[in-house]
Amino acid sequence: MSRLLDQINFPKDLRKLSEEELVQLATELRKFIIDIVATKEGHLGASLGVVELTIALHYIFNTPKDLLIWDVGHQAYGHKILTGRKAVFETNRQLHGISGFPKRGESEYDAFGTGHSSTSISAALGMAIASNLNGETEKQHIAVIGDASIASGMAFEGLNHAGVTNANLLVILNDNAIGIDPSVGALKEYLTRARVGYKPEKSNIIEALNFRYFGPVDGHDIKGLLKILSEMKNIKGPKFLHVITKKGKGLKKAEEDQVKYHAPGKFVAETGELVTSESVDLPLKYQDVFGLTLVELAEKNEKIIGITPAMPTGSSLKYMMERFPDRAFDVGIAEQHAVTLSAGMATQGFVVFCAIYSTFLQRAYDQLIHDVALQDLPVIFCLDRAGLVGEDGATHHGVFDIAYARGIPNLHIAAPRNEVELRNLLYTVQLGIEHPIIIRYPRGRGVLKEWKLPFKKIEIGKGECLKEGSKIAVLSLGNMAQNVEKAIEAISEKDKIAHYDMKFVKPIDEHLLKSIFSRYKIIFTIEDGVKKGGFGSEILEFAAKQEYKGLIEILGVKNTFIEHGNINQLQEIAQINVEGIRQKLESLI
Amino acid sequence: MSRLLDQINFPKDLRKLSEEELVQLATELRKFIIDIVATKEGHLGASLGVVELTIALHYIFNTPKDLLIWDVGHQAYGHKILTGRKAVFETNRQLHGISGFPKRGESEYDAFGTGHSSTSISAALGMAIASNLNGETEKQHIAVIGDASIASGMAFEGLNHAGVTNANLLVILNDNAIGIDPSVGALKEYLTRARVGYKPEKSNIIEALNFRYFGPVDGHDIKGLLKILSEMKNIKGPKFLHVITKKGKGLKKAEEDQVKYHAPGKFVAETGELVTSESVDLPLKYQDVFGLTLVELAEKNEKIIGITPAMPTGSSLKYMMERFPDRAFDVGIAEQHAVTLSAGMATQGFVVFCAIYSTFLQRAYDQLIHDVALQDLPVIFCLDRAGLVGEDGATHHGVFDIAYARGIPNLHIAAPRNEVELRNLLYTVQLGIEHPIIIRYPRGRGVLKEWKLPFKKIEIGKGECLKEGSKIAVLSLGNMAQNVEKAIEAISEKDKIAHYDMKFVKPIDEHLLKSIFSRYKIIFTIEDGVKKGGFGSEILEFAAKQEYKGLIEILGVKNTFIEHGNINQLQEIAQINVEGIRQKLESLI
Repeated sequence: MSRLLDQINFPKDLRKLSEEELVQLATELRKFIIDIVATKEGHLGASLGVVELTIALHYIFNTPKDLLIWDVGHQAYGHKILTGRKAVFETNRQLHGISGFPKRGESEYDAFGTGHSSTSISAALGMAIASNLNGETEKQHIAVIGDASIASGMAFEGLNHAGVTNANLLVILNDNAIGIDPSVGALKEYLTRARVGYKPEKSNIIEALNFRYFGPVDGHDIKGLLKILSEMKNIKGPKFLHVITKKGKGLKKAEEDQVKYHAPGKFVAETGELVTSESVDLPLKYQDVFGLTLVELAEKNEKIIGITPAMPTGSSLKYMMERFPDRAFDVGIAEQHAVTLSAGMATQGFVVFCAIYSTFLQRAYDQLIHDVALQDLPVIFCLDRAGLVGEDGATHHGVFDIAYARGIPNLHIAAPRNEVELRNLLYTVQLGIEHPIIIRYPRGRGVLKEWKLPFKKIEIGKGECLKEGSKIAVLSLGNMAQNVEKAIEAISEKDKIAHYDMKFVKPIDEHLLKSIFSRYKIIFTIEDGVKKGGFGSEILEFAAKQEYKGLIEILGVKNTFIEHGNINQLQEIAQINVEGIRQKLESLI
Repeated sequence: MSRLLDQINFPKDLRKLSEEELVQLATELRKFIIDIVATKEGHLGASLGVVELTIALHYIFNTPKDLLIWDVGHQAYGHKILTGRKAVFETNRQLHGISGFPKRGESEYDAFGTGHSSTSISAALGMAIASNLNGETEKQHIAVIGDASIASGMAFEGLNHAGVTNANLLVILNDNAIGIDPSVGALKEYLTRARVGYKPEKSNIIEALNFRYFGPVDGHDIKGLLKILSEMKNIKGPKFLHVITKKGKGLKKAEEDQVKYHAPGKFVAETGELVTSESVDLPLKYQDVFGLTLVELAEKNEKIIGITPAMPTGSSLKYMMERFPDRAFDVGIAEQHAVTLSAGMATQGFVVFCAIYSTFLQRAYDQLIHDVALQDLPVIFCLDRAGLVGEDGATHHGVFDIAYARGIPNLHIAAPRNEVELRNLLYTVQLGIEHPIIIRYPRGRGVLKEWKLPFKKIEIGKGECLKEGSKIAVLSLGNMAQNVEKAIEAISEKDKIAHYDMKFVKPIDEHLLKSIFSRYKIIFTIEDGVKKGGFGSEILEFAAKQEYKGLIEILGVKNTFIEHGNINQLQEIAQINVEGIRQKLESLI
């Protein structure tokens, strides 16, 4: 069936086709993506939306010499397929398979690795300035960025700098009015006015920043795209093309429910019908425990506010946004703003839950220190996707949070080990806390069937002995408790092993630690995060103060980036899976 | 002399004056600031520029009920003087004196603590939304932000959100065309066109973001300010006032050399003439060793590029900008962009030195991980102002860098102990490195008279024994070596103490550490940074792996924010000064 696509392995093959044939190729490429993602899963809607744009870019520009960067990279599947990875595309996001995002190590066509949003303009500008210095003044540097991503501050910084250079930078705005959730903000409203034909008189925002502005054009009209791109190719300096696309284009259900079909899981390729797995009896996701519990608490505590930077669905803050639209805010891809906005609200006595993925709080690290912790404002950070996240891979693992947060004064760090603990912690903090706190919990499902138990207040900074033992003390953090429990179960001399759930990294339970130090000569710590500077390091520091002379071994993510794969595979690589822990325990016994 | 100012302790006193009297008050307030800063030092130019605006805001708005936030806060001296701190203003920036920045703990008129730029819009918006929820729909929330700060991405994020709310937010752009150094970027050029009378037809950038835009108005015309502010006070929703001011206004020399008079040190109040201290024989500042050495290296290595986010003077990258304007870039207050721009350039084979203060790299933490370290691009980060910085205080101490960077794979961390070591390290890394590296060095002067010695290549990851000893090993990092040397000198049994300069936190010199572990039963580590997760923690982690049974004690900044004061005072508080180290050593002997 895929006659044309069969002939194409690299853009040079593509460039042999006629414009007419490109239209057919677009249909074939779209089908190829749908067929594979239907069974192998992955990000669907974004790539379907840029099929024509992808073909047009590789047709007109001389990739890989001309440098092409896909912001975030959810939309780069077509690009991957047309640049040497058609045969391996079915390994997408699997262990040792290709990455779900552009990645420099994978192909010379991936000019810059992406995953987090809004980096493309800065990176492409850096390359464009470098090309000028190298005397390569014909070379083009292209950043394809969505309307949700361009509203993030970092993208503005890139535009603001580019506008005073003579760099050969082409910014293509892929305007589909949605990121993972619908786009928000004043810029989005402005762009929407541009979409529907409102023409700002002379000077629009982009022109005000010294870009030459073209568009808006229909991103599914491949001939139109070829025409405008051919013209723009010969223009020196910073230029901007506004392209209107539809996320999920070509699969009816994906067009109709763009949020669900961002990454729909398995579906029927022909119809788009979702293949629902048997999840009836499975535990809820941690994010839903957070989202639903927050609504429950907000019913009674009118001071509760929820904030999310562009992740209402992913964080499940959407439940509160539906129930209390005045008290729950999606601020767009704006982590820095989200954190300082939370701080501002906290000064006025509100109980602010700021829901951010662990990896994205990295974007607001200074605001966490400077605006929240330094002023000791009791903002509650709910860090979903803490630890290894699986198929999204190295860009998305939430493994740095403990290490980066631990050095910040005033800030508490907690990691509940299951849904009930999370729920009780959420209950506890909204009763009133003295300091800001990070609550980290993993991606995916919990472990309990009954999670909605009556609320119980938790004591901040208190750990718990889950199991007594005679020789070795295992100190686990958060959901690592589950792996430890299973590992202990698999050991014959299980009486020798004690298990403590420390629950808090800060304040660490010094009283409990002292008692552990006095009773055990072998301790090991386990965490779903980097070992350098993490939870284990906190234990070592206190042990040094106490002049503890026993053995302490730290299990966690070693000093290397962990790639993509399923969580079990990745935990095995990091040796924090059940079997890894069992082996470690056996060797210590 | 200061007849009117004498009567004024709080804004309520101010509000009793006539508009005519306010003009006189402005003159008096300006003189008061000049007289005190002339002898006590501090930030001068910014506060002189907003004297009229400060008076007008407190006159028209009902502070502290209406909430007023000064972005960055360099310009808040007049505000402090008019809000209860006139009598203590001479303690500005001194230990136990008032802070050089707005600070919530200091006054109810300081609605939000500042120090780092571009936070004010987000914070004020958070407060304004909170007020709406509280039913306080008359309350106003004012962010005063400079033209350099508003170009930072975070400010854009705040504007973009505010524009889709009905929050009572007034953003006042204090447009003086300069931050610490002259402002840069496309937005600045746009604002400059607005200043000189160019009127964008219907829709300017600010209106495009759904703000009601007013101005530009003369920020030194107090009556004009009163008029426009009175009008705007009654307008609900987000609104924007563009005010043109002159930094240093009222002191001729400060108007003429705005960079130098940002924080001029001591000067003659009447003339502005700088009081030059006897610095002829003093060592050079570390920043100048960096800046001058970079030029020297760039003369021979044409691949060298320098990047600074808005600190050409402070980082001394200005020397390279003067000598090689095509290869050195001030990108404005845009740390995120600066780091990813550097990464983009590094992909094209350039040797990029990204000069950022330690405290400001916090603003680009995710970019450091995601764009640089994950792709293992050999960007060189020169972190000036690492460690305790003195009078700028808690917002500016560069004490978190080791802790936040240590967990990042691929990234190296070095801390040269003096100017020659810094110079040789700069030389070494531009010869070619495999991984990104952070080079941290302190604020202020070095310790050597002869710094410009012939270049010598340094071995990455190698420490050095500075002094042998029989009982205790002191492991110091960076310039802490100086304090340790002096402390050892002051001890009678100095033969007992060995001193190692570890030079690198990552990779740590494991070979050297093993030899230290085998020879010494007491080790102590000293660093100019937070203890939690820092250099000492790295030593503890390796010691645990080696099953070292001796005593390890970590000296460094405890888990608390350190306020302002001179560096010696602050090092004493952190117990990392010479005397603190001496006492510790004596007690261990």
